[in-house]
Amino acid sequence: QGAPCTDFDMAYFHSYAHVGIHEEMIKDRVRTETYRTAIMQHQSSIAGKVVVDVGCGTGILSIFCAQAGAKRVYAVDASDIAVQANEVVKANNLSETIIVLHGRVEDVEIDEEVDVIISEWMGYMLLYESMLGSVITARDRWLKPGGLILPSSATLYMAPITHSDRYSESIDFWRNVYGIDMSAMLPLAKQCAFEEPCVETIVGENVLTWPHVVKQVDCHTITLHELESVTTNYKFKSMMRAPLHGFAFWFDVEFSGPALAGTNNHAPSSLISNHPVEGQQRKKRANPNEALVLSTAPEDPPTHWQQTVLYFYDPIEVEQDQLIEGSVTLSQSKENRRFMNIHLEYASGGRSFVKESVMR
Amino acid sequence: QGAPCTDFDMAYFHSYAHVGIHEEMIKDRVRTETYRTAIMQHQSSIAGKVVVDVGCGTGILSIFCAQAGAKRVYAVDASDIAVQANEVVKANNLSETIIVLHGRVEDVEIDEEVDVIISEWMGYMLLYESMLGSVITARDRWLKPGGLILPSSATLYMAPITHSDRYSESIDFWRNVYGIDMSAMLPLAKQCAFEEPCVETIVGENVLTWPHVVKQVDCHTITLHELESVTTNYKFKSMMRAPLHGFAFWFDVEFSGPALAGTNNHAPSSLISNHPVEGQQRKKRANPNEALVLSTAPEDPPTHWQQTVLYFYDPIEVEQDQLIEGSVTLSQSKENRRFMNIHLEYASGGRSFVKESVMR
Repeated sequence: QGAPCTDFDMAYFHSYAHVGIHEEMIKDRVRTETYRTAIMQHQSSIAGKVVVDVGCGTGILSIFCAQAGAKRVYAVDASDIAVQANEVVKANNLSETIIVLHGRVEDVEIDEEVDVIISEWMGYMLLYESMLGSVITARDRWLKPGGLILPSSATLYMAPITHSDRYSESIDFWRNVYGIDMSAMLPLAKQCAFEEPCVETIVGENVLTWPHVVKQVDCHTITLHELESVTTNYKFKSMMRAPLHGFAFWFDVEFSGPALAGTNNHAPSSLISNHPVEGQQRKKRANPNEALVLSTAPEDPPTHWQQTVLYFYDPIEVEQDQLIEGSVTLSQSKENRRFMNIHLEYASGGRSFVKESVMR
Repeated sequence: QGAPCTDFDMAYFHSYAHVGIHEEMIKDRVRTETYRTAIMQHQSSIAGKVVVDVGCGTGILSIFCAQAGAKRVYAVDASDIAVQANEVVKANNLSETIIVLHGRVEDVEIDEEVDVIISEWMGYMLLYESMLGSVITARDRWLKPGGLILPSSATLYMAPITHSDRYSESIDFWRNVYGIDMSAMLPLAKQCAFEEPCVETIVGENVLTWPHVVKQVDCHTITLHELESVTTNYKFKSMMRAPLHGFAFWFDVEFSGPALAGTNNHAPSSLISNHPVEGQQRKKRANPNEALVLSTAPEDPPTHWQQTVLYFYDPIEVEQDQLIEGSVTLSQSKENRRFMNIHLEYASGGRSFVKESVMR
């Protein structure tokens, strides 16, 4: 079944054996509480049903599902953290309900169909780590037709940003170091600071205009093949005059499904998005289902995902209404599918550039 | 000359090829400004003289020495950052004065004796990285008798600490995770959080009593052999009732030398240390020379070295005046001398423990 388990996969699983990474994720209250709320909102689809938790980690989402009344939860993780998850399950007298399976979703056996898949699979820039592939594998192996997947969909966004403080701090800094001109460091400083994507927090004020949707993922229909490479063409019109320092990426995921699908009798999205309330920030994405959303956008409360920024080596001065256009391709590294190759083309003011980077 | 260059040494040198590490060190104003002040204080010993800068990095200390009037500065670094140092030197028209040598002090050739060695060699817990060995090699190869070494001496301290917030955050956290008892995680959580030394900032209030001197290093006389293994026996008497969470380590280095050695006509140190000024924190180390000191102590302004803490897996409740005693051995890892093995023995209240750790 599925891809063979490589040394890179082993290293990936091993990175989740350390408690610190789970502590960080669990302490991300936006993440964990949104998942808990989603589980409780979908309680009617979970109570008495069979659930699989893909990449269960310490087992906390499986326990939430048990609390929501699941008949049985298969908690699957290839990392050794599964041993701890099993201890937690036993200590909470949940061994009757939660069955911890220590292995890959490609390899473990579940001898029944499942009603619900829950998974917290999102990486930086949504697709980094390629863990969504495991959700797809689980779906194709075990999910009943019409079953629930939480989250049900995901959207990756990008937007041009200005961030002079950040650029100065790492780059312009070298122009005057305790009175010494160390500008000779600039080429290497730019490379070291900005060759790879930066995971960091930006704020709404850094963003030059409305975001562009890089990729929409419907967890019910997405295929492994589609994830190998994602390409989008974008065109932005800067809302202000500013130095353009690069592009920020963020994502949100939505928890909708059978429980809500039938209740889509709200106003059509066009009505919402075309009539922003005066003085209020326009919702960047209409949500006609009012489904629960976990957002990592710069204007929303911070999460451990922060945002991911691709900085240019040199900023571009853009005028108000100036076009910024190009394309971006995110593809799984052939060498290690846990890595992501990023091919960025961008043009503005008559000049065009290409930047290649790898998220490792 | 000296030890052969291993793959571990290559990896070590490579880690200094990234600009970020130099940015962090240079932006540590306590570090960089103390070095600059030391160079200016010793200007009479530097002007017109020959200097070697061991591990020059971007070359900033070499430039300070040139500004202080050095006749010639050999800036030595085995990392590729030496290429940048050379560019900075050229851009500042200092090629006549500063000669960048890209290689190990064991391997490069300098065809004259030097008057001054300057080096910022200190690692976490002072001795981590084992870079002092390069200073010793440079001293034994090139320093004139009676030459100046900056810094001239270093002292490593340790003290018992209490740090309930930190312990709770990583350990007690698991007792109640969104209402779920995840205590089953505790053994692994303790291991993951505290198996290795933690580089972090503590404050004076965390420290239970006066520090113990683990090692004093006189840069003029220390030998490579002495650094292979350092052992000390300690005995503390807690000044308060508190949970003892572990030991913190920090260091200071002193910049004294010929320029100041003849002026030691201040009050003897006993007079200073036995008559602390009322209401003021007692100086933890008498400094009869009034030599410049770069301190990384918890009560002094923070540096990028912070402090290094060895946490116990379980705290020990100590009463006021309770003895805490044992020994600690810091030794270069046989496998990779850039790593440090730490063998800690501690006993208090009739129980004794041993903790082995490795700083990698």
